Amino acid sequence: MSAPLRLGIAGLGTVGVGVVRIVKTHAELLEARCGRPVEITAVSARDRSKDRGVGLTGYAWCDDPVDLAVHEDIDVFVEVMGGSEGPAKQATEAALAAGKDVVTANKALLAIHGQALAEKAEAAGRVIRFEAAVAAGIPVIKALTEGLAANQVTRVMGVMNGTCNYILTRMEKAGLTYDEAFAEADGLGYVEADPTLDIGGIDAGHKLALLAAIAFGTQPNFDGITLDGIDKVSIDDIRQAADMGFCIKLLGVAQRTARGLEQRMTPCLVPATSPLGQLEGGTNMVVIEGDAVEQVVLRGPGAGEGPTASAVMGDVCDLARGFRLPTFGQPATSLEPAPAAPTSLPAPYYLRMRLQDRPGALAQIATILGTSGISINRMRQYSHSEPEAPVLIVTHKTTSDALTEALAAMEDTEVVASSPVALRIEEV
Amino acid sequence: MSAPLRLGIAGLGTVGVGVVRIVKTHAELLEARCGRPVEITAVSARDRSKDRGVGLTGYAWCDDPVDLAVHEDIDVFVEVMGGSEGPAKQATEAALAAGKDVVTANKALLAIHGQALAEKAEAAGRVIRFEAAVAAGIPVIKALTEGLAANQVTRVMGVMNGTCNYILTRMEKAGLTYDEAFAEADGLGYVEADPTLDIGGIDAGHKLALLAAIAFGTQPNFDGITLDGIDKVSIDDIRQAADMGFCIKLLGVAQRTARGLEQRMTPCLVPATSPLGQLEGGTNMVVIEGDAVEQVVLRGPGAGEGPTASAVMGDVCDLARGFRLPTFGQPATSLEPAPAAPTSLPAPYYLRMRLQDRPGALAQIATILGTSGISINRMRQYSHSEPEAPVLIVTHKTTSDALTEALAAMEDTEVVASSPVALRIEEV
Repeated sequence: MSAPLRLGIAGLGTVGVGVVRIVKTHAELLEARCGRPVEITAVSARDRSKDRGVGLTGYAWCDDPVDLAVHEDIDVFVEVMGGSEGPAKQATEAALAAGKDVVTANKALLAIHGQALAEKAEAAGRVIRFEAAVAAGIPVIKALTEGLAANQVTRVMGVMNGTCNYILTRMEKAGLTYDEAFAEADGLGYVEADPTLDIGGIDAGHKLALLAAIAFGTQPNFDGITLDGIDKVSIDDIRQAADMGFCIKLLGVAQRTARGLEQRMTPCLVPATSPLGQLEGGTNMVVIEGDAVEQVVLRGPGAGEGPTASAVMGDVCDLARGFRLPTFGQPATSLEPAPAAPTSLPAPYYLRMRLQDRPGALAQIATILGTSGISINRMRQYSHSEPEAPVLIVTHKTTSDALTEALAAMEDTEVVASSPVALRIEEV
Repeated sequence: MSAPLRLGIAGLGTVGVGVVRIVKTHAELLEARCGRPVEITAVSARDRSKDRGVGLTGYAWCDDPVDLAVHEDIDVFVEVMGGSEGPAKQATEAALAAGKDVVTANKALLAIHGQALAEKAEAAGRVIRFEAAVAAGIPVIKALTEGLAANQVTRVMGVMNGTCNYILTRMEKAGLTYDEAFAEADGLGYVEADPTLDIGGIDAGHKLALLAAIAFGTQPNFDGITLDGIDKVSIDDIRQAADMGFCIKLLGVAQRTARGLEQRMTPCLVPATSPLGQLEGGTNMVVIEGDAVEQVVLRGPGAGEGPTASAVMGDVCDLARGFRLPTFGQPATSLEPAPAAPTSLPAPYYLRMRLQDRPGALAQIATILGTSGISINRMRQYSHSEPEAPVLIVTHKTTSDALTEALAAMEDTEVVASSPVALRIEEV
């Protein structure tokens, strides 16, 4: 029998405990599938005395994750602490330097320091695997890096923040305002301590940066992502979108253009009958489009003990089976820098605004759009009791540059009562 | 630079040509991702003179696939000829015996001879990969064997025959009869030369047998599948199901039960709002449920040049990268025999029948159900101009044994005008 693969688990929160549970309950299954036993030999967490509902007897204890990372009795350092800086980064670097492979669920760490860490890993002959960092239970990193490796990827899209999708779904299905839906999600414990990580699109943006690096052979570039949160999406937008057959999703999109890498994590309209439009609640979805495969859609739980631990352990099984790949699917030194495209590819847009109720107001807006070269697909002005008139416009395909110009010109008029809301309509 | 991986392609139909195209157009991408070049060195097909739209210059030509399989200049035998017996089987066996790895798209070959071939491969220290054999472009074999390897799989389901799903979708959306929809699909070239492969569920059954073997660590057992085709699904069933919020799909289901392995490929009702219910046209979908991951849904093209070649080449990339796994994810000699469960797990059922319009007819049917221990969830008798009364019954959960008993008893009465249609309602 081959030697066991020995794990050191750094972090005994929800995910770490989930990993311990799988190793304990599925020892036989793991050995049959991996051809060797998988064992935990050491663990690390902040509080040794805390009851976590799983036995830790027989595992060496390290107060400091860096001590665990270099522990002589581990082969793989499993980092499930989180945080892009501090202990997680130090311990990961220490593990690589000490000749350990790393399995991590830490999207922030890799989105920000992924290039440097990948280079360190490869210089040390070690690998970093991170299936759990993107859409938890969905084996999307594997699908993209391995299963679809023979494709030139043309676009990757995803709904990858369950909290945002929960809020948007509740607004749509229950007619809640954004504030009501947010409060509900918060009450259920779905919102991070710093809510901007979720609703500002940062958490989902980290995931998008990792997918884009693999898809396009580029260095992860989180700073190159156009980020826009869901807090400006109103119940009015949700309703108008639904009226026209669309849903609003916090949608990540990455695609290569002639002018650079386009990466966006913004609220978008998608057809209500598309798989993305039908995605409700906290579930995640990733759509991969490639020149050979056309379109593959992956759907599953994007958080939680079991699903996240399933992904961590999928990576562990790969290592136990001797699968070794560069972090982003090809050598880190071969990844190209990914300058952000200065503008996004043309798309139709949804515009909502309130106009002063005076003669010629609508004409001014229409003229501005025409001057910017934007043609109108649909326009509606609703009857109203307030002094301002609600106006809804769906454009034909236009560039984000033209739209930005038009929106600025609208603000300069006297007729726009508040800044117009503009949301991209993603063709899926 | 590492030595190139050298492919021999047996079969230059749609899939073989797709593989040639990818290798020719993506040489640089494949080398970057695999760390070594991927080359075609030899090919084999029936007709050397045929113009296939791709250049074959520089490839050795073999008239006989067995000659290709043992060709000294190939490392991997890529079998895209098809057929469970004859040349495909002989050539695959010859390739393994000659020390070649095998990548195949041949579901019939593996569903029927998979156990023997896997044993041969492992005895020879070779591997067989078959991502393209199940749901073509969807990397589902990889997801199940690797990404979800730490899960005890609880159920695998799939809509895996695009032709059947096309026919059922056209019946539902366009109101066509089964015969009309079949003729349309046939006219579009969607139906196999032997239509029973598609509409009888045999093709999809082959795929289910392969998924079940991986999911449950059992020997592939195609003969143990309960097969039922879509030709008995009428437009009436489609309409009644839709009225109650269901769609009818040719659904494959495999799950382990206390009494053996349950494998079914039968028309089932699924909720119209579920991902399976929303699947239209020729697209495939596989649903994997595991104890840790809960539920993962994979959707994509289940046929066609690009998607199938994408899957073949995904396997080739794995081999180029040095990934080697037993055929069904664990050693073939460790796979357990999979006796078919004598009965399927309880479920609600949809029953449709025509009753003689006479006093007490409905009472007789209701009595028979009660005697078999089947309780009724909903029952409808429709007003009618024909002499027989259309009756629709939805039962609460019951066993297939109880149902079979009740259906037999109904046939023995004088009141049933034609054999009742019974379709399982799968809870998804």
